[in-house]
Amino acid sequence: MSERTVNIILMGLGNVGKAFFQLLEEKAEPVKVQFGLDFSLRAMLRSAGGLSSTSPIRQKDIPEMSAAELTRSPLWKPGLALETVLNEIEPGVMIECTSSNPNTGEPGLKHIRIALEKGWHVVTANKGPLAVDFKGLKEKAGRACRALKFSGAAAAALPALDVGLYSLAGTEILAIEGILNGTSNYILTKMAQGRGYSEALREAQDKGIAERDPSLDVEGWDTAVKLLLLANAVMGLDLCLKDIRVEGVKDIPSGILDAAKKEGKVLKLLGKVSRVRDDFRAEVFLSAIDRSHPLFGVDGINKGITYFTDSMGVVTVTGGKSDPRGAAAALLKDIINIYR
Amino acid sequence: MSERTVNIILMGLGNVGKAFFQLLEEKAEPVKVQFGLDFSLRAMLRSAGGLSSTSPIRQKDIPEMSAAELTRSPLWKPGLALETVLNEIEPGVMIECTSSNPNTGEPGLKHIRIALEKGWHVVTANKGPLAVDFKGLKEKAGRACRALKFSGAAAAALPALDVGLYSLAGTEILAIEGILNGTSNYILTKMAQGRGYSEALREAQDKGIAERDPSLDVEGWDTAVKLLLLANAVMGLDLCLKDIRVEGVKDIPSGILDAAKKEGKVLKLLGKVSRVRDDFRAEVFLSAIDRSHPLFGVDGINKGITYFTDSMGVVTVTGGKSDPRGAAAALLKDIINIYR
Repeated sequence: MSERTVNIILMGLGNVGKAFFQLLEEKAEPVKVQFGLDFSLRAMLRSAGGLSSTSPIRQKDIPEMSAAELTRSPLWKPGLALETVLNEIEPGVMIECTSSNPNTGEPGLKHIRIALEKGWHVVTANKGPLAVDFKGLKEKAGRACRALKFSGAAAAALPALDVGLYSLAGTEILAIEGILNGTSNYILTKMAQGRGYSEALREAQDKGIAERDPSLDVEGWDTAVKLLLLANAVMGLDLCLKDIRVEGVKDIPSGILDAAKKEGKVLKLLGKVSRVRDDFRAEVFLSAIDRSHPLFGVDGINKGITYFTDSMGVVTVTGGKSDPRGAAAALLKDIINIYR
Repeated sequence: MSERTVNIILMGLGNVGKAFFQLLEEKAEPVKVQFGLDFSLRAMLRSAGGLSSTSPIRQKDIPEMSAAELTRSPLWKPGLALETVLNEIEPGVMIECTSSNPNTGEPGLKHIRIALEKGWHVVTANKGPLAVDFKGLKEKAGRACRALKFSGAAAAALPALDVGLYSLAGTEILAIEGILNGTSNYILTKMAQGRGYSEALREAQDKGIAERDPSLDVEGWDTAVKLLLLANAVMGLDLCLKDIRVEGVKDIPSGILDAAKKEGKVLKLLGKVSRVRDDFRAEVFLSAIDRSHPLFGVDGINKGITYFTDSMGVVTVTGGKSDPRGAAAALLKDIINIYR
C-alpha cells in the first residue's frame, strides 16, 4: 500500500495530550501497515510556547513530557503561536486537547476556528468549544470542506458518536439515553454498595477518578454537555446548555437508594433527549432502572448509551476505556476515519 | 445539496428482500434530504425471473409482493438473468438477499462475483457466500475498487461490524465474544424461566422466531458463521467453519441451568475468538456468565457483541432489531455509508 503522510499539530499537553503523544508513537507502525497512513507530528503547543520541527517529533526527542523537560528541548520555541505553525506546515489534522471551559469554550474555540480557516481538519477531545458554538463550528467545517470530529469529547473510547452517526445511518433516532459521566456513576455504584456520598466521592478522588473540584461531574453538567454534543450531532438538534434541565448525584434524598435496591433496581444519572410532540425534551436526572433496561449493568466508571430508533430497534453501546489513553485512542480513531 | 442517483438491483424477494423494498420507499425522502442520495431501484430478481425498468420501481408498481402478483406486473420478465440487468444498467449497488447456504454459498456467491466483476458495489444480508469464500470475495472487491459490505449478514441491525471496523480503528482487537443468534438465546432465556428445551423451541417456532428446521440455529452453526465473518473482517483472520469448535443449545446437561441460577449467573451460547499465543482459538460454547459480564443482560431474541482491545478497553454493543426490517435497515445503512 502506498503511504500517505498526515501532518499533525497537537494543542494542549495535559493528560490526554501526553497520552496521545505516546499512543501516536506506539501505533505508528500498525497504522502504516493497516491503513497506509504515515502520521507526522510536526508541532505540539501549550500556553507558554511549543515545539515544532520540519521532521516528525518522536518520543526520543522528549523522553519526559514535564514542563521543564519541554523547555529544555532544542525544538522549544517560547511563545510559539498556533497561527505560525498552521501557516508553515502543509495542512493535515489539528488535535485539540487544551483544558475544557464549557462557558467560554476558550482557548480551544479560537484554535478550532483558525485551524479550519487555514484548511486543517480538526479532531477534538475538548468539549468546551462544541458546547459553546456547535452549530457555528460545524458550519465553518462544512464551508471549508474539512472534517470536525469529536469522538473523544463526546465519550472518550465509548463509540457513542460513531454508532449514532455511522452505524445508525438512515434510521430515525427517536431518543437517546445515556450514562455519560464516569465519576458520578462510580459514586452511585459505591453508594448502592452502602457508602455515603462524601465517602464515595473521597474514594473517587483518592483513585484519581474525581477531580479535586468535582462540581462539573457531580452536579450533572458534564453529562449535560455530552448529551448536548450527541443530540446536536446525531439528532440534528441545536440545543444549548440552558435548554437542558440538569440534576446531579449530590443531595440524593435518603431512602431512594434503598427503595431502588429493594425493587431490584439501580439508581443511575441519565442524560436523555426525547421527542415530545413536535419538540424535544433534554434532561439530566436520577432514575431507578431495572434489569430490563439496557444500561442496567453499566457500573463504576463505565459509561453507556442507548439509541431508540424507528427501523433498527434499540441499540446500546457500553464500556470503552474512561481514561486519558482511551481518549487518545478515540482521537487516533477519528484521524484514521478522516483519511481511510 | 445536489443529489446523486444510486442505481440498485435487489436479488431475492424473501422476507428480507420484501422488507428492504418497503424500507427503501419509506426512507427515500429522508435519505435524499440528509445524505443527498437518490436511490433508484431498477431491478428485482428471484429464481423464476424478475422485474426491471428504465425508471425507478416503486411500491405502487407492485402493491403486493406475492409471486402471483409479481408475474402479473407489466415489468415482469420470466427467466430474467442478473447478468442481463448488470449489463444494461449503470453500476450502483447490488443487494444480495437470496436464501443462505453456508455449504455452497449459492446462488449468492455467483451473484456477488459477477456483480463485482461488472463494477457494482455489493451489500449482502446473505452470509452463505461469505462463509464459503470470504477472502476471495474481499480480494475481488479490492481489485475492482468496489465496496463489499455485509452488516446485515453479520448481525442484522446490531452494528457489530461497524463498531469493529470503524469505531475501533487503530486499536488492536484481542478477542471477540458475542451472543449472535436470537433463536438460541430466546430458548435459553425461556429455559432459565423454567421451560424445557422442546417447549421453549416450540414457543419460538409458534412466534416465528425459530424456523421449522431449527438445526442451524440450535446446533450453533449460525453463531459460528457470524463469528467467522466478524473475526475475518475485524481481526483480519482467515477462518473457515471447520476451524471453529461448535456446540449448541440442544442436549444441555440437566442441572446446569439450575446451578447457574443459584450462583446468580445466566447460561448463554457464546461465540468467541481469542488470541492463544501466536494463534487464535475460535469456538461456540455454552457459558454461565455473571452480572459483571457485559452481555449478562442480553435476553430473549436480543444479540450482543463485546470487543476486548489494547487501547480502548472493553467495548460492547447490544440490541438492534432482530427481524427482516432490522436486516433491511442494515442494508440501507451500508449503502449510505458507501456513498456518504
